[in-house]
This record gives sequence, structure tokens and C-alpha cells, in this order.
Amino acid sequence: MPVPASATARLLAGGIEGPRALRPMLDTVLDALATGAADRGGPLPPGGPRAVARRVRAVAEPVLPTVGTGAHQALHTLVRALSDPGEVEAGPHAAWHGTSLRCRSRPSRPTTRAILRLAMHRTRRRGNPPLLPRGRLAAGAAGAADPHCTAHLHCPPLAVAAAADLAASALNPSLDSWDQAPAAGELETLTCRALARLVHPHRPDPDALATTGGTEANQLALLLAREAARTAGVTAPLRIVCGANAHHSVHRAAWLLNLPAPLTIPTPSGVLDPARLHDTLAELPGPPHPVLVVATAGTTDTGAIDPLTRIADLCDRHAATLHIDAAYGGPLLFSDTLRTRLHGLDRARTTALDLHKLGWQPAAAGLLAVPDSAVLAPLAHRADYLNAHDDTAAGLPDLLGRSLRTTRRPDILKIAVTLRALGRRGLGDLVERACAAAQHLADLIDSRPGLDLYARPAISTVLFRPTGADPAAVAAVRRRLLREGRAVLGRATTCEGLWLKATVLNPHTQTSDLRALVALVEGSTP
Amino acid sequence: MPVPASATARLLAGGIEGPRALRPMLDTVLDALATGAADRGGPLPPGGPRAVARRVRAVAEPVLPTVGTGAHQALHTLVRALSDPGEVEAGPHAAWHGTSLRCRSRPSRPTTRAILRLAMHRTRRRGNPPLLPRGRLAAGAAGAADPHCTAHLHCPPLAVAAAADLAASALNPSLDSWDQAPAAGELETLTCRALARLVHPHRPDPDALATTGGTEANQLALLLAREAARTAGVTAPLRIVCGANAHHSVHRAAWLLNLPAPLTIPTPSGVLDPARLHDTLAELPGPPHPVLVVATAGTTDTGAIDPLTRIADLCDRHAATLHIDAAYGGPLLFSDTLRTRLHGLDRARTTALDLHKLGWQPAAAGLLAVPDSAVLAPLAHRADYLNAHDDTAAGLPDLLGRSLRTTRRPDILKIAVTLRALGRRGLGDLVERACAAAQHLADLIDSRPGLDLYARPAISTVLFRPTGADPAAVAAVRRRLLREGRAVLGRATTCEGLWLKATVLNPHTQTSDLRALVALVEGSTP
Repeated sequence: MPVPASATARLLAGGIEGPRALRPMLDTVLDALATGAADRGGPLPPGGPRAVARRVRAVAEPVLPTVGTGAHQALHTLVRALSDPGEVEAGPHAAWHGTSLRCRSRPSRPTTRAILRLAMHRTRRRGNPPLLPRGRLAAGAAGAADPHCTAHLHCPPLAVAAAADLAASALNPSLDSWDQAPAAGELETLTCRALARLVHPHRPDPDALATTGGTEANQLALLLAREAARTAGVTAPLRIVCGANAHHSVHRAAWLLNLPAPLTIPTPSGVLDPARLHDTLAELPGPPHPVLVVATAGTTDTGAIDPLTRIADLCDRHAATLHIDAAYGGPLLFSDTLRTRLHGLDRARTTALDLHKLGWQPAAAGLLAVPDSAVLAPLAHRADYLNAHDDTAAGLPDLLGRSLRTTRRPDILKIAVTLRALGRRGLGDLVERACAAAQHLADLIDSRPGLDLYARPAISTVLFRPTGADPAAVAAVRRRLLREGRAVLGRATTCEGLWLKATVLNPHTQTSDLRALVALVEGSTP
Repeated sequence: MPVPASATARLLAGGIEGPRALRPMLDTVLDALATGAADRGGPLPPGGPRAVARRVRAVAEPVLPTVGTGAHQALHTLVRALSDPGEVEAGPHAAWHGTSLRCRSRPSRPTTRAILRLAMHRTRRRGNPPLLPRGRLAAGAAGAADPHCTAHLHCPPLAVAAAADLAASALNPSLDSWDQAPAAGELETLTCRALARLVHPHRPDPDALATTGGTEANQLALLLAREAARTAGVTAPLRIVCGANAHHSVHRAAWLLNLPAPLTIPTPSGVLDPARLHDTLAELPGPPHPVLVVATAGTTDTGAIDPLTRIADLCDRHAATLHIDAAYGGPLLFSDTLRTRLHGLDRARTTALDLHKLGWQPAAAGLLAVPDSAVLAPLAHRADYLNAHDDTAAGLPDLLGRSLRTTRRPDILKIAVTLRALGRRGLGDLVERACAAAQHLADLIDSRPGLDLYARPAISTVLFRPTGADPAAVAAVRRRLLREGRAVLGRATTCEGLWLKATVLNPHTQTSDLRALVALVEGSTP
């Protein structure tokens, strides 16, 4: 017979007791996050890959001890390691121990004031304050939330979204059957439809699937096109046509799905040229041979938006299907002033959107929108234990056709809470701020004689480099800043060579942050 | 120029200010979780799909308002809706409003005592206390944490894991490049290897990939087998051979990967019969035609474990590759007494494991283990902005070949924290408790003249039904309990027809819970 539950009481996150078990552990997490951010004092832990790995190993090993350390020690050590794998110091935290999962042994927390003092002290010790404007550190110097962390489409998440995500973890509904997610399933339906209506405002029954990101959305888009052709009785394999500016996941999805490699059209201007697309489509055998054109609204390298309307016209003319990867650019739809840049988006049969980019969600928060729910029919799937015919006939909703995953976390909760908390205008305002900051960064770069600007940003991506720097020099500047933990810049190659890439996603970015970033690059140029 | 940050201050989860922004929001989430669990008073909201959907719509609409409601109102409303979409009541919570994301307008929280009083009151009002043992409610009656929620391999997550997952949301490192996840990448490497060593203790370089679950792990296993054959120059398509007891995701993965449908061997005994497998393999053309055999360690329907050693011997004899889907059974490895049931697991080339089943993690927490990291080579992938050759040569770790996803949440953090907090023995103890509870449930059912037991549980799954009940009657009992929100039982079909399925995953399950569950089924039988 089972051992009395008392020995493991307060172990679970759910139920009425769950919040009581969670509260002290969350305090430990918040403390570890605060001290980790303070210790780091910049966007990235310094020292480069080997030094960081060595420090993580020193703290994290043994990963699987025979006997556990208790919840608080484990939480504090590993959460802090994730935010700053610095030296383990003597002090109150180093002494945190506990063999139970209860909260009794938790020591008192350092005050926020003490943490901020520690942060200022450590930053001074690391000797990089001259380039950090006073006050920036205390205003949010930590990883993706640091305004100098601009390498990727990797956003600092909103507190409200992270808080909502805790409920997803604690409740753990799984979206593969109604009896595991009675309310979450309905909330997902409502939220996906509301977002699909943003893309397809004039359609009676648009829908969207929640995905792990643009990559999975692109996979699903290719799969749906492959299966639509198959359902229509076409035996010729689906041909994919995309620009060289398309995301790498389009090529990887073709490989996964056992489709021929995409026909890739050069994009020297950064966008898919309709004339070249026309030529390519004209050379293909035409119907019934199925063709899927992939356009991009916000490329990874430059943030450029392909000419969507003209591409959609060409797809109509050549009877090709259109997929638009709007993983980056899609959230411009929230803004009344910026949404016009996506004119033509509603003509796609499938659209990838990512709210963990310009949507400030913790990963994962991807979507695949379709103009009509019938487009999703090829994903229908039956598993007797999840959606038996008699259960479906008796009114139990069938969720299995809404993903290729089975167990599925309700990523929609944080999205739904964010949409409700900020509203469309609130999100649109954040999108506008990020785009305005990028324009301002471009202005600053343009004004510096030692820096070249690639082009005005189409969304919030700014490419630049030290004047005359060759690719090796550009790459070296980027790696030096990474190793020092002072700025996280990306890289992008155009026909003009290699550039530094700043993808501005932080809506709090200030002029002083941008000036400091420019100064960091200038100061790191040999 | 960007708008002053003051207007959106304390919006982000990261940085030194992040914890200060998160704390009051987390209080709101905890309160909503507590009141939601109390309001529900059982494992599922009552009323069935239509009623639940109607209540969710009433609370959640409009999903995307033009102007937001503020963080606390959104968090409270939607988190509560997810845990119990009951009627919205007048009272302090109904009045929660706020147009800012700040915490000023948050009202004082109800005490836990008040919540428990409310819970008892509402349970009485719903009129189902006679079958609920006194005290069960207060001991954790909520969704997956309710001992009567046993339909699926859907576990109640540990508080320590949910708390760690908050840090993943707040920090938001993304595991597609080193500069987005310098410490998380190393922590993942260490943790994946430690778990792979559990499966392959005698191999020098075992490894594992983090996946969204067993479904993705099975997909990857089939993909790796397809590509291994391709790399070896074989043009014949990979043939997959599995039992009828294999998970539906094996068939779905074959479809996704454009492989022939699996050859499915009947499994009337619940496990893959080596004699039948031998016959099937002998009829296939043999090398160089590639064959992948899929065995299961813990089937979804009955929890049965295929005879792994004999299947591995047959794979050796017929030069077939072996994949073992141990999504359910794999965590028996944590237990010194139960791990012997998995003898032969180390002979698989690929192994699926899920720690969001017998591992008490919030989804997603899947793994694909391999005996040697070289097995993962086909996933290598290049994207200049994430893993350019010169960056890799300069020592920046290349993370892109560790998943088919690009942006990737560090699900490994909650796993690493749990392993460290509980240790192998702590997790083994939880696994043993769940298995012991299932044995006890089987004893109870065996002792009741009105119930039939299918078989002794192999892991923690118990199939049973009212004596003599036909499939329609069994299905009706299950749906009645779901509709009433009193118990969440699964279903499984064997050659003897349809059964009710109880998958015991809650390590807190008590004898009184099991007795009450049996009584609920007896009371719902016409």
C-alpha cells in the first residue's frame, strides 16, 4: 500500500495546497533571478564559451545526485547559474542547504536594495562602467531584457506573460484531449481565432494553430501543401519556391517532409523580386504539378518585407499556393500605423506568426494562421484513447488535429492573458516603440563617420559595420563583445559582405542605450 | 525617438527589476489558482463540454480587446477560468479592474483559510460530498493533482519543477545559439548526458535530445533511421515494424516523414510477440533494405512492457535497427527495485523518454536518448546567423543540430532542478509510490464482485469495468463521470473489448482515494 502522503506533502504545484507549496519556492526563484542579474551586470556572462561552461559545470554537477539537495538549494543554484554562472561566493546563499522539499530551511531574503548595491559593486569590479550609462544597470540589465542584447529575434518577455506561464506549468493541462484541458481547449480556440481574424479580417471562418515557433509553423505549412496536393490526387511531388532571403527552416522542413529541395531565387536586394519569381514559376511545368511559394514578411537577416501583393498576384496567375512567413513582421498587425506594411498578407493560404518575437512572450508562442479552418483538415488524426468516434459523437471536442504533438502545453494562456492585459493598442504601442528605437539607432549610426549603415530598417533590424571593415574584422568585433559580455550583436551577410546586426525588440530602449551600443562597437574596432 | 520608458516601467520579466514586477503578479496567479481549485472542488469542472465552453467564453471574451484591462485583471480572470470556468461571482474578485500593468489596484488577497471554507461550501452545494472522503478536497483537489484524475499519462507536476519553469519564462534563453543561452546550453548538455547515462550506463559517450514529448522523440527516431539508411547509400525506403500496441505517433511520424505506413503486428496479449516479429522480419527482403523495429516499454493502453531483450536479439539477427518508446516506462530507471523491468533498454539505438509522465514535470519534458552522440549526426544543420563556420571554429558552441526547432525554450531547467532537488532516490521513491498505488487499486477492484480487472498492472495502469458491461455501457460510465466532473478515467480497447483505464501517476494517492474512485464507478453503473 502507498506510503502516507505526509512524507511528500506540499510537493505538488496543483490543487488548493499547490499555491502554498509554490509561494516560498517562487520567492527563491525571484531572489535567484535578482542576484543573478545583479552579478552579471551586463547582457551576457563574461569570459566566452569555455569560461561560462566551466562555471556552469562547477555549480551544476552532479546533475543527478543519488540523494537530492532539496527544492530551495536546487532552485537557487541552478536558476542563478542560468542567469549568471559566476563564481560561487561565500555568503548567505552559498550556505543554502536542505534535504527536504519543504520551505523551512529557507533563509531570509536579501533586500532589493542590497541586491542593487551588490550589482553596482560587481559592475565596478568588472571595470566596464565607462561605457554603461549610469542607471542602466538598475533599470534592467539582464539577458534578453538588456538593451544591448540585440543579436536575435529573441525578445525580453513581459512580466504578465511570464506570470501567466506559471499557471500553465502548475495546472499542466495538456491540449491533446478534452478531459485533460476542458477550459484550456476552449480558450485556445477563442484566442487562435481572434489572432487569425487579425490576419484574415474579411473571412468568415479563419483559424490558427499554436506552434512551437515559426519553424514548426513553416513545417506545417509545407505539410499542408503536400497533403492538399495528395488529397487532390496529384502524384507529382510538391515543389517549393522561395527567395534566398527565406528562413533556413523552409529548407529543413522540405528535408523533413521528404520533398525536393526548394528552388531558391537569389535576392540581392534583400527581397523576393516578382520578375524573377515570375520567370521561375513560368519554367515549372504548371498545374496539376503543385507549387508552393514561400514569401517572407520580416526576414531574419534584414527585417525586409517581400512585396506581398505582387507575389500573391503571381501565385494566382500561376496557380501556385502562397505561404507567408510573418514570424517576425506579423505583429505589425497590432499597430494602426504599421499594419499597412503587411498589405497582401491576407492572401496567403498559410501564415506563420511568432509572438515570442515582436509579442514579448516567453518561448514558445508560435502560430500558423489560415483563412479557413478547412485548410487544416489534413491534420485530422484518430487515436482511440484520445478521440474515439463515440466520444466525438457524444460531443467531446477532438483536439488531436490541432497539432502534430500529442501532449501539448497550453502556450495560449500567456498569449491570451497578454492580449487581454494590454489590448491591441497596448501591443501596437510596444511594436511602435521597438520600430522607433530601430529608426533612431539607424540615425545615430548614419551620423557616425566611423560606421556604415546598410539601409533604413524595414521593421526593427539595423545592419551596420565599422567603415571599411572586412568580414573577418566584423566577425571579430562581434565575438569580442560577446566574450566580454558587453553587447550581444548578431551577424548578417548581404551581397555587400558581413554586417553586424542589431534587432531592436526591447520597447524600453532609450537613446542613451543606443548611444552606448554605438560607442561599444566603436570602442571594440581595432 | 522612443517614448520615455517610464510609461511601461516594470513591464518586463527580466533584469534586476524583473522580480519586482513579477512578485505581485505571481501573487495574483497563486490566488487565482487557489480560488479556481476551490471553486471546482473536483478533478474537472462539471457540466460537460458545452457548459464549460459557454462559461469560458463568458469570462474570456473579448479575447483581444482594443484597450487592455491591465495585468492583474487579465491574470486573475483567465487563470481562474483555466482552473475552473465557473460562474463569475460578485465579490472582491469580480471587482478587480485596472488599466495599468502596475500592481497598485490589486485588492487584498483572501486568506487560504477563507479559500478552504469556500471550497467546502461549494463542494457541498454541488452535492457530491458523500463519495468524496472528508479532507480529500483540502489535500489537493485540482485537475491533474486530484487523485481521481487518472485518465491519461498526464501527471500532476511538482511545485519545484513549476517554480523552476517560471525562471525559464522570465529569463527566456533560447537554445538555438550560444549567444542566446550561454549557460542554459551547457546545463542542457550536462543534464541530457546524465539522463542518457541512466539508459546507457556502459557506453562512453551517450547523449540525449530534449523534445516536446514522446511524440517528437518518436518522430526524431524515425527520421534518424531514415537518414542513417540514406547516408549509407541505401535507396530503398525505410520499413517500420511495430506492434499494434505501439503509440499512434509512430504511424503519424511515418506519414510526416513520407515513409511507407508501418507494418503493424497484432498484439492480442498486449505485448509484441517475438515469434510474430521474427516471422515478419523474415518475410522482409533483408539488408541492405533498412528496417526499424519499434518496441514499447509502457504501452499507452495497458502499461505493458514488450520483451525488450528478445526483441533486441531479433533485431541483431535480422540486422534491423531498434527504437524503444519508453515515454511512460523509462523513469522506472530511477528506482533500484523497478529498473530491472527495463532489462534490454540499453540495446536500443534510440529511446524515447518523457519526464512529463512518471517524472512529474509540467509539459514539455521529453527526451530522445542515444547510446552514442554520433547517432545524432544527421540533424546537423547550418544557418549563418546562428552557427557560421568561423564562429564555430572560434569556439562558439553549435546548438542547432540538437533539435528540429529553432527558437527553443529551456525545458531542461525544470528537469535539472528536479533531479538535483530530489536526487535519483527521491524520484525513484515517487515512481515506486505510483506503482504501489496502482497495485493497490488492482487489489481493490479484484475484491469487488461488481467489477472486472483486466490484469495486474505492469507499471501503474489499471484496466477494469463493471462486470458484464458492453463497450457502450463502459463508454457511458466514463462520459457520465467526466460530465459530472467527479472522476477522469481513460479508455482502452483490448481483444476483450472496451475497459475503463486508471493511470495512477499521483504519488500522493491514498487508499481512501482509491476506494472512493471504485465507489464512484460502482455508483455510476446503471
